[in-house]
Amino acid sequence: MTHEPKHMLVLDRVLDAPAAKLWRCWTESELLKQWFCPKPWFVSEARLDLRPGGEFYSVMNGPDGERFENFGVFLEIEPERRLVTTDAFLPGWIPTERAFMAAHVRFEPQGDKTHYVARAMHWNDETLKQHEQMGFHQGWNMAADQLEALARSL
Amino acid sequence: MTHEPKHMLVLDRVLDAPAAKLWRCWTESELLKQWFCPKPWFVSEARLDLRPGGEFYSVMNGPDGERFENFGVFLEIEPERRLVTTDAFLPGWIPTERAFMAAHVRFEPQGDKTHYVARAMHWNDETLKQHEQMGFHQGWNMAADQLEALARSL
Repeated sequence: MTHEPKHMLVLDRVLDAPAAKLWRCWTESELLKQWFCPKPWFVSEARLDLRPGGEFYSVMNGPDGERFENFGVFLEIEPERRLVTTDAFLPGWIPTERAFMAAHVRFEPQGDKTHYVARAMHWNDETLKQHEQMGFHQGWNMAADQLEALARSL
Repeated sequence: MTHEPKHMLVLDRVLDAPAAKLWRCWTESELLKQWFCPKPWFVSEARLDLRPGGEFYSVMNGPDGERFENFGVFLEIEPERRLVTTDAFLPGWIPTERAFMAAHVRFEPQGDKTHYVARAMHWNDETLKQHEQMGFHQGWNMAADQLEALARSL
């Protein structure tokens, strides 16, 4: 049976960098820290255990001392093509305090460029609207700019 | 980092059947249908795709024509030892309409018997309480009785 996602926000762009380099930026913690938050926010710590159920953890910091821990796990990994993560589980498949979203990220090579599609899927319309109000579109676009620039520098 | 589950309901019993047979009852759809619901309720349909992200679907039917579809996926499979499922996702890692629980089931051989631990983990206390009021303890115990009897008949 095929299911259609509801409650979905989408970023769909062509990035001017090869999929293999974008993949490195997504999956190596020292690279992820450099682009994952729109500046002046920054990631101070990241742990990535790249396997189904493996930890995906980061700490986001704001310019006024804000600090947010992001807990989650990887759900599916298809090297250089597809990543699925969620904040609904901690390692060991323990439910977090809140299931906010699953992120589906696709990398499709187009010559030296990459068709990059990042989808944020939510459990209901309330959290989708919260995510929009938190600035999903601007935030994920700014992060994608940073991702593209970093990948080009590798 | 080790995380402790919160919002958890537990069934912990020794079943008088070997782990390998209990495992078959849990993972073969035609067997699952025979024990998964406390009678007089019954399962009319079940689909099990035994891999991480694979479908775990069943339809429960009541004596007065009630019909409930249960959607979900498998998260982790350790043959004859451990199963983790959740109703938070549909196949393709698409969020369901509601993340209610993750079920962690353990089978530890003890001679010809099996130490059987089934844990229902919830995202918050509200759904835990709902699950208790729906009759978690009685329901999962009755189902475990049926599971044990079926496994012994194999």
